Amino acid sequence: MRVAVNPRLVEMEYAVRGAIPQRAAELEALGRKTIPCNIGNPQALGQQPITFFREVISLLESPGHIARERRLRGVTGVAPEDQVDAYVLGVAERMVAQLKTGLGGYSESKGSRFIREAVSAYIDRRDAVDGRVPVASDPDRVFMTNGASEGVMFLLEILISGPTDGVMIPIPQYPLYSAAIKRCGGAQVDYYPDEDRGWALERETLEASLAEAKDRGVTVKAIVVINPGNPTGAILGEDSIGEVIDFAEEHGLLIIADEVYQHNVYGAEFVSFARVLGNREVGLLSLHSTSKGFYGECGHRGGYMEVRNAPGLEGYELDLLDVLLKRASVSLCPNTVGQAMTYLMVSEPQEGSPPWARFVAERDAVLEALHDKATLIREAFGEMRGVECFGRIGAMYLFPRLSGLPEGTTDFDYCMALLEKTGLCTVNGSGFGQRPGTSHLRIAFLPPRSMLSEVLPRWIAFHNEYVR
Amino acid sequence: MRVAVNPRLVEMEYAVRGAIPQRAAELEALGRKTIPCNIGNPQALGQQPITFFREVISLLESPGHIARERRLRGVTGVAPEDQVDAYVLGVAERMVAQLKTGLGGYSESKGSRFIREAVSAYIDRRDAVDGRVPVASDPDRVFMTNGASEGVMFLLEILISGPTDGVMIPIPQYPLYSAAIKRCGGAQVDYYPDEDRGWALERETLEASLAEAKDRGVTVKAIVVINPGNPTGAILGEDSIGEVIDFAEEHGLLIIADEVYQHNVYGAEFVSFARVLGNREVGLLSLHSTSKGFYGECGHRGGYMEVRNAPGLEGYELDLLDVLLKRASVSLCPNTVGQAMTYLMVSEPQEGSPPWARFVAERDAVLEALHDKATLIREAFGEMRGVECFGRIGAMYLFPRLSGLPEGTTDFDYCMALLEKTGLCTVNGSGFGQRPGTSHLRIAFLPPRSMLSEVLPRWIAFHNEYVR
Repeated sequence: MRVAVNPRLVEMEYAVRGAIPQRAAELEALGRKTIPCNIGNPQALGQQPITFFREVISLLESPGHIARERRLRGVTGVAPEDQVDAYVLGVAERMVAQLKTGLGGYSESKGSRFIREAVSAYIDRRDAVDGRVPVASDPDRVFMTNGASEGVMFLLEILISGPTDGVMIPIPQYPLYSAAIKRCGGAQVDYYPDEDRGWALERETLEASLAEAKDRGVTVKAIVVINPGNPTGAILGEDSIGEVIDFAEEHGLLIIADEVYQHNVYGAEFVSFARVLGNREVGLLSLHSTSKGFYGECGHRGGYMEVRNAPGLEGYELDLLDVLLKRASVSLCPNTVGQAMTYLMVSEPQEGSPPWARFVAERDAVLEALHDKATLIREAFGEMRGVECFGRIGAMYLFPRLSGLPEGTTDFDYCMALLEKTGLCTVNGSGFGQRPGTSHLRIAFLPPRSMLSEVLPRWIAFHNEYVR
Repeated sequence: MRVAVNPRLVEMEYAVRGAIPQRAAELEALGRKTIPCNIGNPQALGQQPITFFREVISLLESPGHIARERRLRGVTGVAPEDQVDAYVLGVAERMVAQLKTGLGGYSESKGSRFIREAVSAYIDRRDAVDGRVPVASDPDRVFMTNGASEGVMFLLEILISGPTDGVMIPIPQYPLYSAAIKRCGGAQVDYYPDEDRGWALERETLEASLAEAKDRGVTVKAIVVINPGNPTGAILGEDSIGEVIDFAEEHGLLIIADEVYQHNVYGAEFVSFARVLGNREVGLLSLHSTSKGFYGECGHRGGYMEVRNAPGLEGYELDLLDVLLKRASVSLCPNTVGQAMTYLMVSEPQEGSPPWARFVAERDAVLEALHDKATLIREAFGEMRGVECFGRIGAMYLFPRLSGLPEGTTDFDYCMALLEKTGLCTVNGSGFGQRPGTSHLRIAFLPPRSMLSEVLPRWIAFHNEYVR
């Protein structure tokens, strides 16, 4: 039996889980050790979860456990370190009271209201200048999602009706975007941040890209910006964000701001699109996730999308929020544990509370280690002939440019050979898109330092041999 | 600003979370108490989670908790009931060892291998005759999903490329199917089980439906069967299942078997499509979920899809499994807690182990209460003029036929009035589809008995007044 299927789904590409990681899985099955730097999956490389988050979720899962902890606190002979502290217990008890149907009931399709309220409060705290925001975040315009990916999927299937509906994406980009556009049968409209200037984003580049799309009959609906950048790590300043907003306003585009790496800035300041937008009436959809930052809770698939200035729908007495809600309803609700994890991500323990010192120590240790490991890898690039890495360190990735690959070989060949030789699993630049004629790779800077110290010299040797 | 969006997403309908439940939410916001029988959400109506499942998940979430429990077991002065028992701890520890990247890492896109192995082992145990199955379930052909809904969404977007691609669905149906077909721009092809004969499914009905589709230029790709039925509760026997398989084989259709209510049969025997299929080479995709049964873990969004006889793809050197995997990859992985919950659903505690007696008592209490409540509601129908309910009790729903509604009113009007008068939130039959000229409603038989005793007399009074 054979079946005809939707060719868009077959042709969709997703290099982050493509041929190179698949080869790594084969090698693992044969007993070879590989180092999975193809994807930002921190806990797969030994990063420990934030204890406070997990203690609360653990209590939420088991109402009997909460009762037992309450009893244990009254039992003499149990050392204090054997008890969940009263603060953690209190957080869990308040969440249980607000969850109403526990973790086992479907929540509202948008997500539990108290969690959406906490997200809005977080956004307002984050974006306040002198304690004030021009426009407060509205919990009714927050949608909880299964990771940020689900929000992107929902949005693009709503915005794209056919082959002339276009979405602007940066090149290089996180291939979720190209895959989602392909899946919906829309037009991918590339724009090119300037690599040599640290991936700077300029108005004229955006205009050129839009003009080119119009020339081929494409109606651009939205522009995607990933900040901090994936795969580049580039961090946008207020001016660049302002230029994107000007551009979107002038051309009537929605802005899709992928801000899932907002905690991965390593001393730099993160500036959100919402903060720069202020009270300007440009449609903005900003995405965040529990998968990255210092928490790295990928498996929990938590995230949210905040909507500002939702546009009305042509031909209907509805706006974008209505159709997003309908799409969310058909999937019933995002998983409740991911929602609870998102709640905790946006509700840090109170300063001075019992878990505070440990929370801060864990957070800072993760972020410092990430920066340290990124620096170590960048230094290794200095010893590899023809390798240059632009911009400052952000997100969880480095995206070096490879010059001088042997005639007839591509960055895909390079990454595959690197995997075979050293066990290091990276992703070829062509999987993210790149200027024609250039070659890159993306590496997630997640392996423990000891692993890097061991593999980097082997990579340097491999490289200088490969390009010889 | 206005934006043109995909009209298919706007026009998609999903009555289970449609106008009536939305009105119920408004009433709740005004302080009215409503009874949410619009949806199979057991824990929202007070059903307690299965303790064993939650104890294990609670431990998995917090590695520190496992260590603490280990220590506590060595501390004197703690009463045994204050300890997680050693069996539960052992299950959690074995799962942690097999999860490798814990709950915080992305798993394989298909789901963790040991969980897929447990699913296959469950299917084989369930379907064995004299301890043997003709074809063993293959873990490589099991995909873990965020609830069963996600599996349906993935499948239909792969199978449907355009308006002449059709999928056969029973009428009435669970509106996820009509919504998913609408979303993909395909053709919904209705077939009608025979209500007066307890929703029996007959070959000639299927043939008539297929012939009608061909007449209008539709190529039918697949047939959906929901067993036990939603919204009807009908339970299919081996003969009916065999007829569907014959039909699918003869016409080269895939079978999509929605078997999420396989534990909701109340003394009747559940027969799976896989068991009846045996070694016949018909493509079968069967779906299951942690949301229903006696566990009702809707919020955890756990589920799986098992594929048998995956067809090759026309025009590609690939089969359906390849493209399902690619679609799953773009969403990275289903949430890991839902996967762990599914593992527990398919791996009951060992008979005679410490949690066994409590597990059985909890399971049986839920199933007996469901059957008891369904019976109570059916008896009430006997006192409502013109209400008939066909077939035996299955799944979590009753779908009575309403005759004699006042001229000019519909079942939607009836359900809305019932909500306003009694607070009981049901869904109109037209939300599921029904034979033209008939009227129905669906009620989930989940409210506690005390709530039913209070509301049923008021419903009877409302009804006999409404149809007078």
